[in-house]
Amino acid sequence: MIEAGARRREIDEVASELFHANGYAATSVRDIARALQIQGASLYAHVASKEDVLWSIVDATATAFEERAEGALEDAQTGDPVDRLAALIEAHVEVVTNDPERASVFVTEWRHLSEERREQIRDRRDAYERRFRDLVEEGIAVGALRRTDPAIAADFILSALNGIPAWYRPDGRLSADRITDHYVDLALRSLTEENPR
Amino acid sequence: MIEAGARRREIDEVASELFHANGYAATSVRDIARALQIQGASLYAHVASKEDVLWSIVDATATAFEERAEGALEDAQTGDPVDRLAALIEAHVEVVTNDPERASVFVTEWRHLSEERREQIRDRRDAYERRFRDLVEEGIAVGALRRTDPAIAADFILSALNGIPAWYRPDGRLSADRITDHYVDLALRSLTEENPR
Repeated sequence: MIEAGARRREIDEVASELFHANGYAATSVRDIARALQIQGASLYAHVASKEDVLWSIVDATATAFEERAEGALEDAQTGDPVDRLAALIEAHVEVVTNDPERASVFVTEWRHLSEERREQIRDRRDAYERRFRDLVEEGIAVGALRRTDPAIAADFILSALNGIPAWYRPDGRLSADRITDHYVDLALRSLTEENPR
Repeated sequence: MIEAGARRREIDEVASELFHANGYAATSVRDIARALQIQGASLYAHVASKEDVLWSIVDATATAFEERAEGALEDAQTGDPVDRLAALIEAHVEVVTNDPERASVFVTEWRHLSEERREQIRDRRDAYERRFRDLVEEGIAVGALRRTDPAIAADFILSALNGIPAWYRPDGRLSADRITDHYVDLALRSLTEENPR
């Protein structure tokens, strides 16, 4: 007998893979059950609906982003906005490379949630993005970053980071750490005075 | 009686909206027919399958990206790799802002194509990305851009640009031209020597 909590985690794990590979809408509860080698009916002992599984994955991933960001800002132990922004970017890439499938499901499949849950995720994403925007704004205010549109800059950076799951492989050419360094570098430099043209 | 070509364009138009809003897998041929106020059977007079509609949209969007890129490089009338890269970025943002729904369907739904068509799109995307990568490489070679990983840099930039449909509204705060300028600026600067840290 598998303990209920362990089974629940297994469901999310397998569902993340399926949602990532085929999309939420194209995945049925039966597909998830089949991948776990259990009956569909047994799956319903653990989850109320397919949307509940998606919610569990999306909610946990949002929490991972929030907590890593919070932790990174605490660890940064600095008020310097550029260093704090670097810490946020690093934290984000770490969450993405740590579980690219979940990160991808979070970014692309959240729109299949019920309206209420979608609202909640939208609010949390807005608050998360605001941290990036505010630090860009602070960086500009102290003269460390070029005067630019902080909302556009934050979107530019976060979209770039969220593209990682499309090509990232844990056994690929570059280690997760090396990729993190590259992305921090590219993102911060996008905000510099110097224009190569 | 609507002329066949016009009806075909209308189908792609409506299907793009539905695939963008709900995803390809969650959209049925009946949904498309209903949105066009015709019978499902009448739709099949114009398209062989739902996947054919997706292919038509994805193929046309890939062609739009390829042709705009080609045109932009011709118009650039310069061998300078940084100016040529700027022209490519500008062209890409223009295709995205010109039809954000199609661009979004292209980026997120292409994986629902049949294996053979997916292969073809993968090859065309690779060739398209290679243009960006090659120009970054050239820019590094002539000393105009910082030494960095050209593949990572190209992925970083293209992912950032492909994030635009998630928030772009034609009647939004910034015009498409202004957004293009911002993105060219952010992308090119990401490749400069100067690091704000």
